Amino acid sequence: MKPIKVGLLGLGTVGGGTLTVLRRNAAEIARRAGRSIVVDKAAVRDLDKAARVAGDLRLTRDPFAIVEDPAIDIVVELIGGLSPARELVLRAIENGKHVVTANKHLLAKFGNEIFAAAQGKGVMVGFEAAVGGGIPIIKALREGLTANRIEWLAGIINGTSNFILSEMRDRGAPFADVLREAQALGYAEADPTFDIEGIDAAHKLAILAAIAFGIPVQFDRVYTEGISALTREDVRYAEELGYRIKLLGIARRAEQGIELRVHPTLIPHRRLIANVDGAMNAILVMGDAVGPTLYYGAGAGSEPTASSVVADLVDITRLATADPHHRVPHLAFQPDQLADTPILPMSEVRTAYYLRMRAEDRPGVLADMTRILADGEISIDAMVQKEPAAGEAEVDIILLTHVTTERAVDAAIARIEALAAIRGRVMRIRLETLVAR
Amino acid sequence: MKPIKVGLLGLGTVGGGTLTVLRRNAAEIARRAGRSIVVDKAAVRDLDKAARVAGDLRLTRDPFAIVEDPAIDIVVELIGGLSPARELVLRAIENGKHVVTANKHLLAKFGNEIFAAAQGKGVMVGFEAAVGGGIPIIKALREGLTANRIEWLAGIINGTSNFILSEMRDRGAPFADVLREAQALGYAEADPTFDIEGIDAAHKLAILAAIAFGIPVQFDRVYTEGISALTREDVRYAEELGYRIKLLGIARRAEQGIELRVHPTLIPHRRLIANVDGAMNAILVMGDAVGPTLYYGAGAGSEPTASSVVADLVDITRLATADPHHRVPHLAFQPDQLADTPILPMSEVRTAYYLRMRAEDRPGVLADMTRILADGEISIDAMVQKEPAAGEAEVDIILLTHVTTERAVDAAIARIEALAAIRGRVMRIRLETLVAR
Repeated sequence: MKPIKVGLLGLGTVGGGTLTVLRRNAAEIARRAGRSIVVDKAAVRDLDKAARVAGDLRLTRDPFAIVEDPAIDIVVELIGGLSPARELVLRAIENGKHVVTANKHLLAKFGNEIFAAAQGKGVMVGFEAAVGGGIPIIKALREGLTANRIEWLAGIINGTSNFILSEMRDRGAPFADVLREAQALGYAEADPTFDIEGIDAAHKLAILAAIAFGIPVQFDRVYTEGISALTREDVRYAEELGYRIKLLGIARRAEQGIELRVHPTLIPHRRLIANVDGAMNAILVMGDAVGPTLYYGAGAGSEPTASSVVADLVDITRLATADPHHRVPHLAFQPDQLADTPILPMSEVRTAYYLRMRAEDRPGVLADMTRILADGEISIDAMVQKEPAAGEAEVDIILLTHVTTERAVDAAIARIEALAAIRGRVMRIRLETLVAR
Repeated sequence: MKPIKVGLLGLGTVGGGTLTVLRRNAAEIARRAGRSIVVDKAAVRDLDKAARVAGDLRLTRDPFAIVEDPAIDIVVELIGGLSPARELVLRAIENGKHVVTANKHLLAKFGNEIFAAAQGKGVMVGFEAAVGGGIPIIKALREGLTANRIEWLAGIINGTSNFILSEMRDRGAPFADVLREAQALGYAEADPTFDIEGIDAAHKLAILAAIAFGIPVQFDRVYTEGISALTREDVRYAEELGYRIKLLGIARRAEQGIELRVHPTLIPHRRLIANVDGAMNAILVMGDAVGPTLYYGAGAGSEPTASSVVADLVDITRLATADPHHRVPHLAFQPDQLADTPILPMSEVRTAYYLRMRAEDRPGVLADMTRILADGEISIDAMVQKEPAAGEAEVDIILLTHVTTERAVDAAIARIEALAAIRGRVMRIRLETLVAR
């Protein structure tokens, strides 16, 4: 089957990420979508700069050349701002092309017009990337929670302001200092107004509320207050009272109508969402049937945002490719594309370990044990010997290992249990740090 | 358009919840799906008991009468277990009916056979409810993260064992005691083997891994170890070292193959997933483009599980109803079904407040202030007066209010700022507990 051809408007942070992800994961994506998805052409500002990453990609400085190109199936709008983004998106729709966009500003202002145009022309406008970066929150709300009357949602949907608030809290630093550092680190723009004054969050909230409640997008009705007036004293006092301050976008169904508001908010520090730190995003949704659900992930950045752009491309491709009832394969990948990757036996699994044993409280036990671990090439991350309880001659020894194989640990445990000073069995619990490794 | 007719196999906890949700949210669901979804017939064990909740629903004691009924469009299998669930599902597929099931046991054992049959007959088998209760994790993995090579996922996917581990930690209680209490509270079954020995989690992990990696469902290859051997000492020692113990289902792509394992796992206590307590579930997914994303919600229960069952029903209905390119409406609800619910002005918003003010350190200030709040019918949740710094005659006063209106607080703030003893402006930050209210 012919590949789906994508035209990119913009090859900056997200555009570059989209190109990278589509190329790197081309095989995986085709196995899921039932068809290849290739970037055929991109509109860029600087042709020379773009040529370095473009490869065989056709380049143009004229974005309208993309939306008018009959070879392009899907236009991906990643230039941001209102104009010419609006004209480009509407023109692409007019030409019968599907559109994918990450442009929350555009959708907050002109979403109703754009969706009506798409409806009229029988094309799709995907915008998963417009809210919550790589978090599939649009899909969750629009398809995953369709059983529910949504009562409210509350989201950390601006990474920059969450980064600043996290730093203010962790270091007791004032807003202005942290903002300057965030700018130096690239977490905040030179003009940070949209982020720190809550405007970017209000764009996203207007979109989320429309989907949650079935109302038009109404950005101009969102009450918007940023974080620039917060003092470190308030952050500290809130902490002392058991709260964290987060910039939340809140949409709530009240008796008389709907509340739409973005503002700094104290939330109890034990709530999961209160512990979403740095530039991460999270959206908490309260449905009448499901109760609370939470969606967490990177709210911005090149590949996280590209992840959502490409998910929309796969969605559109699946519809254009499969028979409707098998649009999404049961096991995510096309049935003839399942892999026979072997499942590893447990002995070959690699993880870290917590080992606890009971030993006589006498010299030499630790030496014997560490020798056994060294023989097995198991390195020790931490070792704790508990004080013996009054009148007891035995102690608990706890060991944390670095990542090793289950086989090596099993062998070491057998040798440790054979030591004369060790009582009973060694308790073995696996340990995972749950970060990339 | 004619309603979609659903036949329920089972009217127990989840079946009853499905009926309740479909009835209570009928209007909202039809606005989203473009068509009504009604339960037409249910197969139950006890006709008399069922008649109390059934209303105009047709009842039968023979589940095969449902899968053979030509009036039924979608069969929802909620009787659990392997037989006759397998025969019923295969027969429904054979009859050209779509199937929705919450039966992870069935899919873990016979998923490959069932999906192949559905593929052959051009029908869909929805199983969002089989993993993670109300969390739309199947949709997130299968559609939301399609751009990614999934590197690993780690999930708290058994609520009963998570409840037991949370209680063991909070109260320092031994496993056996907590299990007995969980049974008394209905959090654990009379025969808790599937939950506490990790078998239920292994069923779910086999399904998640298939979708994440594009491999067949391979339950018999999952290494499975439960929580029954954990001691309270291990829970405490782990805590002292900065870790929590969770029963995790882990699927990881390693160099030589795929790791599939369910076992108690130490995880750093600062990770978000380490703070998922009680009977809640969460799945952490690491994608190469998006990085870590996390999905949290109720992993079991009547309406949370029904939420996923109904989401699958809406998915199927949308395909059978809309033109394919508008299968999912842009704003979740059908374009002609958007509501004109008013957006409230900020003055009418109801929330709680943190108020901070600087005041002269003299008697009577607090009395004046609390009088003003009482006049505005604003009740005080907490009040803290900070000690004045050395040599200073002014103090910070912090107040937390209960839920009230913004209008009332604005009026109170104006009066407080007019007090002679108050210096400068009152800092006002809104406060949300983020629980149902």
